[in-house]
Amino acid sequence: MGVDVTVDIEFICIGNELLIGKVANTNAHWLALQATALGAKVRKISVIQDTVEDIVSCLHEVSARKPGFIVTTGGLGPTFDDKTFQGIAKALNQPLKMNPEAFEMVRNRCSEYAKKSGHLGEVEMTPPRIKMALFPENTLPITNPIGTAPALRAQIGSSVLFALPGVPLEMMSIFTQTIAPLIKQVVGSYVFCERSLFVEGVAEAQLAPLIDRVMNDNLGVYVKSHPLPSRSDHTARIELHLTATVLQEKKPAQMLQKAINHLTRLIEENREIVPT
Amino acid sequence: MGVDVTVDIEFICIGNELLIGKVANTNAHWLALQATALGAKVRKISVIQDTVEDIVSCLHEVSARKPGFIVTTGGLGPTFDDKTFQGIAKALNQPLKMNPEAFEMVRNRCSEYAKKSGHLGEVEMTPPRIKMALFPENTLPITNPIGTAPALRAQIGSSVLFALPGVPLEMMSIFTQTIAPLIKQVVGSYVFCERSLFVEGVAEAQLAPLIDRVMNDNLGVYVKSHPLPSRSDHTARIELHLTATVLQEKKPAQMLQKAINHLTRLIEENREIVPT
Repeated sequence: MGVDVTVDIEFICIGNELLIGKVANTNAHWLALQATALGAKVRKISVIQDTVEDIVSCLHEVSARKPGFIVTTGGLGPTFDDKTFQGIAKALNQPLKMNPEAFEMVRNRCSEYAKKSGHLGEVEMTPPRIKMALFPENTLPITNPIGTAPALRAQIGSSVLFALPGVPLEMMSIFTQTIAPLIKQVVGSYVFCERSLFVEGVAEAQLAPLIDRVMNDNLGVYVKSHPLPSRSDHTARIELHLTATVLQEKKPAQMLQKAINHLTRLIEENREIVPT
Repeated sequence: MGVDVTVDIEFICIGNELLIGKVANTNAHWLALQATALGAKVRKISVIQDTVEDIVSCLHEVSARKPGFIVTTGGLGPTFDDKTFQGIAKALNQPLKMNPEAFEMVRNRCSEYAKKSGHLGEVEMTPPRIKMALFPENTLPITNPIGTAPALRAQIGSSVLFALPGVPLEMMSIFTQTIAPLIKQVVGSYVFCERSLFVEGVAEAQLAPLIDRVMNDNLGVYVKSHPLPSRSDHTARIELHLTATVLQEKKPAQMLQKAINHLTRLIEENREIVPT
């Protein structure tokens, strides 16, 4: 994406509901927006089945690229199809063990729910509840401020791995409180900047060489053309989206403004000569 | 997903706009729904950058799993960031060559647009237009009934590979006309069936052992629990989603009904004993 290189991040979304189209992957969209806005570069998003084999093979594949961060969503709950920790344990070659800190987190949350529904005695820590506290050895639990299942932090190869719940509110809350500040710290003074230029009446194929010139002359600026649905008069409408993730001191807003000016000038010069 | 095995399909969505969160991946959601409804099993969805290296490495990784079908979206247009055919050429170890049939498709579409905007002479086949007709050798172009860039069909390892445009209407139209009938043919008499059961006032951890029993006793039925946002009275609300992709003669609707009855009975039996 240009001359500078910021930290890479990859997302792994775990759940058959995403692969059968039962649920739209709004988690991936939200996480991609957040990580990009923090100045990180999202390298890949993988959406995989609830099987230990697929979780393990995906973790191996992703960690081989050595991104700074890997974040998984889904599969932390009490039911049999929640297999994320099993997959992480196998990928790390660590046994699953009851984590006392996670156990307390689950018990506290269950007691709270029981009280709210009028139950007064000690809550029973049934096997499905204990399951949420079975962590791979040498990994850390993270409090879930909204739901029951604690999240996880671990090191895998040279990447920091976080496993978040799939419930959107829980995922967003833990990402914002725990992960975002850490990403920002590693990203340092890289920032993301974007601008759009809307062009009518010029076809994408005619814009292509102009975009090439602007990208060549404005290193660090990435220009993507997005054809928009045409109006009833069939006029071509295209959004040119300019982005840069560069060090703050390179003044990304000015970089983008310069590229926009350059692009606008080239389009106006060429509009007259080339028919649509 | 049960005792029967239908054909696997994988999707690869190519485009930085998906990784920066500029665009929600509605294509993946739509394709997952369609392929599932056709009776195929979506194994994985990969969302990757516009780089030849990432396209090649993803194609290698996916084709190593030998799914029946691989469908890519995005990266077929005239601009420099449209690199899907370059990636496929490299993955197949085939040179990119001007495909005469694709060249005619592009020229016809450009002439049509030129006429609509009042231009009468011969359209010039500029390099960006020719780019859309540069196909890896031994691959086939597919007419794009809505846009300019032709789609592609190829064989990669033991999988049939389709490369579709990223513009949703174009992607949907080619999938429906060309790919869906072929998937249906390979899927044969496998069908997908789903039912939901909504449960209130029972926590997910309490449902876990009941779900285990129902899945054990109803082979081929997959049960996933989805916690729903709780109401102001904090009552737990859970959707139990039952799915089966099995041969038609196994009567999937009856299979699901039987599992629903079993689950309902177990929940009612346990609701009294276990406090929330």
